[in-house]
Amino acid sequence: MTERKEMTRPDIAGRCAELMLAADQASSGLGIQVVVTEAGAAEATMEVTVNMLNGHGVCHGGFVFALADTAFAFACNGYDDITLAAAATVEFLRPANAGDCLRAVARERRRGRTSGIYDVEVSNQQDKCVALFRGRSHSSGQPMLAV
Amino acid sequence: MTERKEMTRPDIAGRCAELMLAADQASSGLGIQVVVTEAGAAEATMEVTVNMLNGHGVCHGGFVFALADTAFAFACNGYDDITLAAAATVEFLRPANAGDCLRAVARERRRGRTSGIYDVEVSNQQDKCVALFRGRSHSSGQPMLAV
Amino acid sequence: MTERKEMTRPDIAGRCAELMLAADQASSGLGIQVVVTEAGAAEATMEVTVNMLNGHGVCHGGFVFALADTAFAFACNGYDDITLAAAATVEFLRPANAGDCLRAVARERRRGRTSGIYDVEVSNQQDKCVALFRGRSHSSGQPMLAV
Amino acid sequence: MTERKEMTRPDIAGRCAELMLAADQASSGLGIQVVVTEAGAAEATMEVTVNMLNGHGVCHGGFVFALADTAFAFACNGYDDITLAAAATVEFLRPANAGDCLRAVARERRRGRTSGIYDVEVSNQQDKCVALFRGRSHSSGQPMLAV
Repeated sequence: MTERKEMTRPDIAGRCAELMLAADQASSGLGIQVVVTEAGAAEATMEVTVNMLNGHGVCHGGFVFALADTAFAFACNGYDDITLAAAATVEFLRPANAGDCLRAVARERRRGRTSGIYDVEVSNQQDKCVALFRGRSHSSGQPMLAV
Repeated sequence: MTERKEMTRPDIAGRCAELMLAADQASSGLGIQVVVTEAGAAEATMEVTVNMLNGHGVCHGGFVFALADTAFAFACNGYDDITLAAAATVEFLRPANAGDCLRAVARERRRGRTSGIYDVEVSNQQDKCVALFRGRSHSSGQPMLAV
Repeated sequence: MTERKEMTRPDIAGRCAELMLAADQASSGLGIQVVVTEAGAAEATMEVTVNMLNGHGVCHGGFVFALADTAFAFACNGYDDITLAAAATVEFLRPANAGDCLRAVARERRRGRTSGIYDVEVSNQQDKCVALFRGRSHSSGQPMLAV
Repeated sequence: MTERKEMTRPDIAGRCAELMLAADQASSGLGIQVVVTEAGAAEATMEVTVNMLNGHGVCHGGFVFALADTAFAFACNGYDDITLAAAATVEFLRPANAGDCLRAVARERRRGRTSGIYDVEVSNQQDKCVALFRGRSHSSGQPMLAV
């Protein structure tokens, strides 16, 4: 394995994503696919299945949130510093239906010493915005990669 | 079936909850149990399973959110007026771990003509607060029960 | 006065802004300047004065919020439909100090029949981001302009 | 002056409030009165004056927010640890009018090592809820009192 000190910043972001994906049973169980292009940015996609529908017949907000939260988590964890969600706000703009292919795009708005702000936009296969999510991260100061 | 006009307010809340539960594949798929005691209030419980764990080995925020969102949805849908989540904020106070039994208690803070505010507190089996959630509802003006 | 029905959309946005500005004692009292370029967008600027400082010697969050809220209000009121703030979230990213010239830029993210979402970014004279604000509007359905 | 090490916890909270009040030009300029009863709790009151009215003739949201934010700031600064607002959400439930006497009551929901969550409820002289505010604090780790 390449040593941590020899890795470039994109290498580090990619390796952190690999480690998290391998361990992330929640996201994979929901069929979420994640792509991390660089530290601070991530995209996650998910198809809305019938077992994600709520009592009104549309996608339960928890699953829309989970998709956005996944993109957020991968965006904020690309620095080899284990980082958790401290808070989030979500605006639900339109319902997601069974069969919809949702895409969540996360980008960093600010990254400070211990906390960061990330914006995530969730849209459907027609590029209509389904939800706006803003997450606050809190970094633990613990590295993710072995030295 | 009892006609809508002969039902008391608690009857209506209970009947709305029954109908929603029967159709809610998302919540039942997550093992969420819901109790609605009156219109505007609901409790939901969920056990954190291993397939809810994220890449850091703790419960994915999406599932904590989903539990709170479910309690919120049942609290705001007890008036025979189909009501959806418009927005929510969540503060994650401590991680939830595999095996934890989470309880979400939703109460109404305000209910206006078209929107409402609901506070949900999610705690674990040790009564430690896991998350604080505040949801904004938007009512459709469409009845849920047959006349 | 030009009649409402002969006005273009930018005319309407401009006229709504004029009427609101003339009546807005709060914003003018804070020295806030507002520019509305089109319906759904607005910029507001404010200098931080010593009487805006809190007990820690930096600008009280209430004034940073007020600036963002003003930009939001002018952005969402450009459609000749009296619209109020229903909710807002704000992330304070760095302090504002006495003498700072703050600029709040509001843009519409979504406008539905009765509610809308607006993002406002507040930055200082060095273009450093001071705060991120997201507001939810609620329209009254009442026109602002005389017919 | 009593030395820091001889002070009780309520003494410390009271002394921190005194120091902050003396320096807080923003709150006093708005006519805000603050009472701190214990660390983690505070009440602030303010009369809505005509120069707080916005273009719709009701109290500008920035001033309602400022009142809540003041109560929050005094609640979270009672531990002799300089603490700033990191984020806040506010739900505006009803307008405040000129002459209204608003009261903001802040209570601590959680206080961790570096951050805390505080709920503030703003009500008018008829005890009607005007706004619900939730603030996230970030402590600097710097003491406020001289040793």
